[in-house]
Amino acid sequence: MIIVNTGNGKGKTTAAIGQIIRALGQGFNVCLIQLFKGESFYGEQKILTGLKGLDFFSYAKEHPFCIEGITMGQTKESCSPAFAKLSEIANSYKKYDFVVLEEFNIAMRDGFINITETINLIKQLSEKSTVIVTGRSAPQELIDIADIVTEMKEVKHSYNKGVKAQKGIEF
Amino acid sequence: MIIVNTGNGKGKTTAAIGQIIRALGQGFNVCLIQLFKGESFYGEQKILTGLKGLDFFSYAKEHPFCIEGITMGQTKESCSPAFAKLSEIANSYKKYDFVVLEEFNIAMRDGFINITETINLIKQLSEKSTVIVTGRSAPQELIDIADIVTEMKEVKHSYNKGVKAQKGIEF
Repeated sequence: MIIVNTGNGKGKTTAAIGQIIRALGQGFNVCLIQLFKGESFYGEQKILTGLKGLDFFSYAKEHPFCIEGITMGQTKESCSPAFAKLSEIANSYKKYDFVVLEEFNIAMRDGFINITETINLIKQLSEKSTVIVTGRSAPQELIDIADIVTEMKEVKHSYNKGVKAQKGIEF
Repeated sequence: MIIVNTGNGKGKTTAAIGQIIRALGQGFNVCLIQLFKGESFYGEQKILTGLKGLDFFSYAKEHPFCIEGITMGQTKESCSPAFAKLSEIANSYKKYDFVVLEEFNIAMRDGFINITETINLIKQLSEKSTVIVTGRSAPQELIDIADIVTEMKEVKHSYNKGVKAQKGIEF
């Protein structure tokens, strides 16, 4: 099964995190491959690393649109082990019940990983695992093969009134 | 601050759970008041009860639309301690950083708790805590006073192809 959380609103990543908590609570084994989320900046990282049943990998800790001084080329390079990890688990005999590919939509959109190759791996992996892919701008090719697609749609956001990102809420 | 997760798509509850994990990871103290979620049916309940910094209350474990043989009157009665708990924390000197009111939108929509009274308490509580309210059909009066509103919009769902709710995914 393939689940996609996309859209411009809040809740794509937190819904995936909640889904991981739900799956772990049911005794599932879960793999999270995270992009663009820094080292230990996000609150959830501190809790997730302590949970049993979860293999947690974080790559390409910075996205050039968020952090100054990072080039597109550097980011492409730092996304490559994430693609390699996805390929490894898709081709491995080891079976995760759940695999979360966080911000992979963005990595595909921005050309850091190849759309067709990534979607082929996701399709292959979904034969043995439930795969969740998050990030705005999900490619249409992914939406076409997905079972559940949710658009997190921003109805209202205080960012637009000039409020800055807040600890515990946005990170 | 008031955050609302609404809409007909997947991710309202899981996003709130992910938000709790994020907030706990930042060292915040959190209160979750949950409606219509059974006893230990949902995977997340098993993990959440083991986390430090979270006070977890669950009321009105069954909704008449989901479980046969439960009357609207019985549900209204079993929602009343949830309203009382909200009132208690809104009026207490104790300060939670984060309060999650799970499925309160549904309870307001279906008349199990009074909309105006509940929204007044949410408004009062939001002066000292960030309040997250989840559930489809958020009342317009709540949307009007909220800071962040996300509509989880169903783009595609395999339910519609006759696939049943799956363990670890929907519960």
